[in-house]
Amino acid sequence: MSDIDERHEARMKRKKDVVDQAIAAARVERGVLVVNTGTGKGKSSAAFGVVARALGHGMKVGVVQFIKGRSDTGEEAFFRRQPDVQWHVSGEGFTWETQNRARDVATAEAAWDQARALLRDPAIGLVVLDELNIALKYHYLDVATVIADLAARPAMQHVIVTGRAAPPELVEVADTVTDMTMVKHAFKAGVKAMPGLEW
Amino acid sequence: MSDIDERHEARMKRKKDVVDQAIAAARVERGVLVVNTGTGKGKSSAAFGVVARALGHGMKVGVVQFIKGRSDTGEEAFFRRQPDVQWHVSGEGFTWETQNRARDVATAEAAWDQARALLRDPAIGLVVLDELNIALKYHYLDVATVIADLAARPAMQHVIVTGRAAPPELVEVADTVTDMTMVKHAFKAGVKAMPGLEW
Repeated sequence: MSDIDERHEARMKRKKDVVDQAIAAARVERGVLVVNTGTGKGKSSAAFGVVARALGHGMKVGVVQFIKGRSDTGEEAFFRRQPDVQWHVSGEGFTWETQNRARDVATAEAAWDQARALLRDPAIGLVVLDELNIALKYHYLDVATVIADLAARPAMQHVIVTGRAAPPELVEVADTVTDMTMVKHAFKAGVKAMPGLEW
Repeated sequence: MSDIDERHEARMKRKKDVVDQAIAAARVERGVLVVNTGTGKGKSSAAFGVVARALGHGMKVGVVQFIKGRSDTGEEAFFRRQPDVQWHVSGEGFTWETQNRARDVATAEAAWDQARALLRDPAIGLVVLDELNIALKYHYLDVATVIADLAARPAMQHVIVTGRAAPPELVEVADTVTDMTMVKHAFKAGVKAMPGLEW
């Protein structure tokens, strides 16, 4: 065996020990609250990837989209065809499209009613609250109410909240938080938002 | 109209102008090379969410998984049921499981042959190269060869590369790069990797 192969083997043995110990230490089984925030790509698509993952395990999934960007997205077309997915879209466009705060508040409250119904249903294994952080950022919804409803959900239900600028109160109670940090973006280099990739 | 509503309307009008100008400036239509890296959650699941998105637009998708963590993931079960998805898994486990560099190199090279076939097929609209960054990090594959094959792909084909520690040469040629930055992770708080969420 060559030197490089031996060093590799020793390094990977040490790594395996560390990984095995971490796996042995993680024993709790429960629903997890995930927050995907930041200004980079992948906050919503990571949630939709987990939807596919959950469906592969035979789970039922509920999705509420709080800010409707467009009505012809690939993810909506695809997941509406899946019998185990409930897909709710609310809102009339990005908040800079409506330019009407009172209407945005009413729309967000109606969407939260739909979210709450999912959060009270133990048959739903995964709830995605897409762009909820935007509704919280603009104070269309009360963050304390949202957190109380999240805390009261079924013990084994997973929730993924997406959107830039997650409020600190939500980050505090979440289990797993990722900041999707933009390194670079094709859009800034003049590439159109491409169907099948961006929407 | 109240003060807060007026300020909101003015703010959103300004925001709409900025957004509209950016959309007007982005005119190029072509395949985009995306890299999802970093130590946080969501690198692979964001890619799988885009798979769903592409399928919703009627595109064909190819996935190559370079590092096979486990054989019973929800995403694999779900997407193997989709007629427009080609799903290739290579590797015999995380690299710290095999502890055999020569075998890992041979496995990565065989996986790259599968990737190259997808990258030469204009009928494939989206190619996901899952955990390719790991194979590059350990020098199982030559980064210059990988970049040359990516550059030679069909003009409208999108590619998503995932895995922590993306090599700088790949970041340099990519169009959209996101660093999934870990803020916190349930696993570190003792929660098991949950089916339907983590795998």
